[in-house]
Amino acid sequence: MDQARNGHDSRSIDPAAKEMLRIADREGYATIWERYEQQQPQCSYGQLGTCCRICSMGPCRIDPFGDGPTRGVCGATADTMVARNLARMAAVGSSSHSDHGRKVALLLKAVANGSNTDYHIADPDKLTAVAERLGIPTAGRSTAEIAGDVAAVAIDCFGNQGEEPIVFMEKYMPKKRFQRLRELEETLYRTTGAKTGLLPRAIDREAVDILHRTHFGCDHDPLSLVAQSVRCSLSDGWGGSLIATELQDILLGSPIIRPVKANLGVLEAESVNVVVHGHEPILSAKVVEMAQSPECRAAAEAVGAKRVNVVGLCCTGNEVLLRQGVGMAGNESHSELAIMTGAVDAMVVDVQCIYPALADLASCFHTKFVTTSEQAKIPGALHIQFEEHEADAIATRIIKTAIDAFPNRNKARVYIPQHTSTAIVGFTVEEILKALGGTPQPLIDLIVTGTIKGVAGIVGCNNVKVQQDFFHRTLTEELIKRDILVIGTGCWAIAAAKSGLMDLPARELAGPGLQAVCGQLGIPPVLHMGSCVDCSRMLNLAGALADHLQVDISDLPLVGSAPEWTTEKAVAIGTYFVGSGIPVHLWPLPPILGGPQVTKILTSDAKDVLGGWFFVEEDPKATADRMEQIIMERRAALGI
Amino acid sequence: MDQARNGHDSRSIDPAAKEMLRIADREGYATIWERYEQQQPQCSYGQLGTCCRICSMGPCRIDPFGDGPTRGVCGATADTMVARNLARMAAVGSSSHSDHGRKVALLLKAVANGSNTDYHIADPDKLTAVAERLGIPTAGRSTAEIAGDVAAVAIDCFGNQGEEPIVFMEKYMPKKRFQRLRELEETLYRTTGAKTGLLPRAIDREAVDILHRTHFGCDHDPLSLVAQSVRCSLSDGWGGSLIATELQDILLGSPIIRPVKANLGVLEAESVNVVVHGHEPILSAKVVEMAQSPECRAAAEAVGAKRVNVVGLCCTGNEVLLRQGVGMAGNESHSELAIMTGAVDAMVVDVQCIYPALADLASCFHTKFVTTSEQAKIPGALHIQFEEHEADAIATRIIKTAIDAFPNRNKARVYIPQHTSTAIVGFTVEEILKALGGTPQPLIDLIVTGTIKGVAGIVGCNNVKVQQDFFHRTLTEELIKRDILVIGTGCWAIAAAKSGLMDLPARELAGPGLQAVCGQLGIPPVLHMGSCVDCSRMLNLAGALADHLQVDISDLPLVGSAPEWTTEKAVAIGTYFVGSGIPVHLWPLPPILGGPQVTKILTSDAKDVLGGWFFVEEDPKATADRMEQIIMERRAALGI
Repeated sequence: MDQARNGHDSRSIDPAAKEMLRIADREGYATIWERYEQQQPQCSYGQLGTCCRICSMGPCRIDPFGDGPTRGVCGATADTMVARNLARMAAVGSSSHSDHGRKVALLLKAVANGSNTDYHIADPDKLTAVAERLGIPTAGRSTAEIAGDVAAVAIDCFGNQGEEPIVFMEKYMPKKRFQRLRELEETLYRTTGAKTGLLPRAIDREAVDILHRTHFGCDHDPLSLVAQSVRCSLSDGWGGSLIATELQDILLGSPIIRPVKANLGVLEAESVNVVVHGHEPILSAKVVEMAQSPECRAAAEAVGAKRVNVVGLCCTGNEVLLRQGVGMAGNESHSELAIMTGAVDAMVVDVQCIYPALADLASCFHTKFVTTSEQAKIPGALHIQFEEHEADAIATRIIKTAIDAFPNRNKARVYIPQHTSTAIVGFTVEEILKALGGTPQPLIDLIVTGTIKGVAGIVGCNNVKVQQDFFHRTLTEELIKRDILVIGTGCWAIAAAKSGLMDLPARELAGPGLQAVCGQLGIPPVLHMGSCVDCSRMLNLAGALADHLQVDISDLPLVGSAPEWTTEKAVAIGTYFVGSGIPVHLWPLPPILGGPQVTKILTSDAKDVLGGWFFVEEDPKATADRMEQIIMERRAALGI
Repeated sequence: MDQARNGHDSRSIDPAAKEMLRIADREGYATIWERYEQQQPQCSYGQLGTCCRICSMGPCRIDPFGDGPTRGVCGATADTMVARNLARMAAVGSSSHSDHGRKVALLLKAVANGSNTDYHIADPDKLTAVAERLGIPTAGRSTAEIAGDVAAVAIDCFGNQGEEPIVFMEKYMPKKRFQRLRELEETLYRTTGAKTGLLPRAIDREAVDILHRTHFGCDHDPLSLVAQSVRCSLSDGWGGSLIATELQDILLGSPIIRPVKANLGVLEAESVNVVVHGHEPILSAKVVEMAQSPECRAAAEAVGAKRVNVVGLCCTGNEVLLRQGVGMAGNESHSELAIMTGAVDAMVVDVQCIYPALADLASCFHTKFVTTSEQAKIPGALHIQFEEHEADAIATRIIKTAIDAFPNRNKARVYIPQHTSTAIVGFTVEEILKALGGTPQPLIDLIVTGTIKGVAGIVGCNNVKVQQDFFHRTLTEELIKRDILVIGTGCWAIAAAKSGLMDLPARELAGPGLQAVCGQLGIPPVLHMGSCVDCSRMLNLAGALADHLQVDISDLPLVGSAPEWTTEKAVAIGTYFVGSGIPVHLWPLPPILGGPQVTKILTSDAKDVLGGWFFVEEDPKATADRMEQIIMERRAALGI
């Protein structure tokens, strides 16, 4: 085993990770990989979705291979169990993204009414664009007035108690898709006899609806539960996540296309290294900003450091990468490895995807592990509560914690693997359209001529069940080779950046059509669109193409994948892609296979009714084949 | 086994249930009891709370007895797993009650603005009382105007996006308790360094907050997770449930003290029997009403039936029992048994606690099993979608389904066990105060003199792990014997009614003090306060006593129990009792014992900080001893 690891390491394809894992093995640091081995064998009922812990007459479980009972105590079938568990995953994933969006909306309100002066409207043009999209008057009005109205519409999307679809979705979703979902609601009412909503009413309400409906003795119908999962997930993609993305651009500035560095080599031996990790850039953007303040610079120099070097991890890393050009230390599975370099003076985390093991690991080093959100407390961490209205002061205090830790760094233990790749990042919808001359027409033309066959959107995570970044990189390479433009977000985007696929020379890996386009436009064949909450940017790009062509998203040669998915957010993202008409590949296996009806609905029936569906595939090359096939089928249907 | 069952049946203490279970055994009908046996052995990880399915790197599990790994893949400890699972249970339970409340609030709005004419303001006095409590002007205003304002305040409690506590809680919670929670928030901020909220902001938001916080890589701190569980549950007790109760009284009429019949003997061999089952009376009240319409009466007579006999089951049964004097067929575990009588022409269900097995069972009979809510579809059921604005027509249609089924009834298979008990029900806070002469002072005097030692509040369910009604009845008898007044709701209340404990002669089972009081006031020693959503009535009674004495609820000799709990709603109820300062007994074991820190917080630390806490006990007599001891300790602390 150790032999195998030291040679071809089965845990990661990343050269920096391989170096760090050798250190972990030598020093005996526990990582996700060791803990995963210790958890073997994992429960098959849980993996198949047929474990139910919803009431205290349970837990119940059903062996889908027919051994043992076919019903839980209440009479629930395997399909009911699977569908309820899945619906709850969608509710959690949606709520996580949306709660993120809520905070940004509330901050925009506070900035607009002057109660927060630590932030300001960083991109008034984006504000105007969002306001116009929402139908808010802009002519002759102050930025604050417009921002207040935008914030009010956004906030209303969370708590409105009416029956109408949320305004952001209505204004952003392409017309044909909106209409199709509306018609599908009517069809389902007619055919099932039950009111079946697909267009979300309010973001919070749809999650709460799932909780109610999955309570003991409520909804037991796989179709009905899947439909509500779609509705709730759509409230994420076209609601909470979209609001997060659009309003963060307004408050923190819209990303621009620029080169950055990615991988652990962005840590600097001579500097105070602060790693920001998590998802919400409201804090991390401030950490980046305040690290440049004369106060922090002077404090760093006073302890003998070159400077304060803020680097990113995971999606809050993506946010500061895109907006502030900050170096990217790595994706989720790099979080433990970063601390093991011994060169991290503080790891500052906000919310989501933060291993609690980081606190223990940090305690083996001089590293301060700082939690900042009341929604993500971690035993063993130093908690410095973040408050938006004191953002500058708190960010400064956090940086000083790192500066104070710097002198305790044991230089003999420091090992920074010298790997970084260059990545050209910041391909927002606005930046893509700008590169195309202000209209999607050139991209459409390229697709029509077949120069580019279609577009694949890929999203994070890392997952210990897949060799780190292997599926991300291999699938991406296979797709661009087939002249499929790859766009994406999250930990996938970091994998692509670390692999060099977002650098200009990567166009040589692309097929002839895509290669030519990249050369012409001066872009890589693989485009970084943001953090996982920014999957909304992919929806918007799809929407722009669809509306421009006056077709539905499901008519376009687009396909999605979450090839190393881990979190419930990924379930929500996958589901809102499917609900938006985009077929989605998943690996590892989602916990649904114990429910044959649910599996059929998601992998087959959805195709006809939604135009999007799920498929699972373990092999990256076979996945690329299937994705290409879907794109070719859609091209054929369009007659191109 | 069959021998044991036919003799002393271990499944139920209810004589009607015993008779029906003999039929089930003879005919081979599967029930919860058979399915429970088939599910043995049940997963211990699930029962201890140390199974985690939150991300797809899992499922992970931790043996709390130290065999195997002590961390999940991400590093989550047993306590983190337990606390997250518990928090999600509280979120689901709270959401279920609250979603019920939301529908009532939206209906009140529709009635107020005239868009719904099938309902009306049935209790204008209650409307005025609620409005005055909320600080809404009433003088010189129309009922519709006042109702509109009350509805608006209620609706706002669900969706408000501000930071202030929900208005219903602020106006209904006794002052000292509100103040204590406010101070506790400040103490927790000071001692933990983290913003820790206990007073709910908006009902939906607190549930969504839990979903976000229990997402992969967020909150791992048992204290923080428990605190948010309390906050969310308080948004149920003093929010969603309270709104449901108060507004249902306004729309459907406030319950009055009256005698009713309980148990399967309420079914009538010569009548069309319609069983309403579930929780939301908006529909069931209409079914009761329309069953008396000339149209339905004529239709019933046309098929040779005496009349349409609507009876209740579970909590929607409690609602129509209290408001319309409808006979009660039984509690949750009676639902299958009712169908087995062969005399149920339709079982009409709304939401919550409906075994999906009922659909299959009904198909063995002529019984129409009718689902009505899009949130509770059940495969095999006939779905007749309920819509509030067509309530009369839909209720009529549902009744006609039963009338149409009546001629198909196989009379040879009909067996109605001839058991009913009389119960005096309808002890709302208003009715109790009226009986006391308009003020809580007489009750307080009785408590001060020790004539009544204290008050115990008990709440449903049935649970297959406990002999049906055994814990409910035995504990209740033990408490009244000790001069402890017992009040309660839900399936407990039905058990007490069936057991005769709510009839006047039951006072002979009470201790001398309570016996005398019952004689004087002409009430039973055990008071039916409503459905499980009406636990808010118990909070209100506690609040009335506390405010009258200018003390906190936690100072009063009150104690709670959920002795046969099954559902996540029970978790929310127990938690809002604890958060309101009332100690709560639980049985069966809640899935927390795998987390020593969580167990300590809930069973010990909470005592000091909240004044309420949980304890578990399997034996009813030992439970009564402990409840009495708590009451005596509180009396001593009050110097009485």
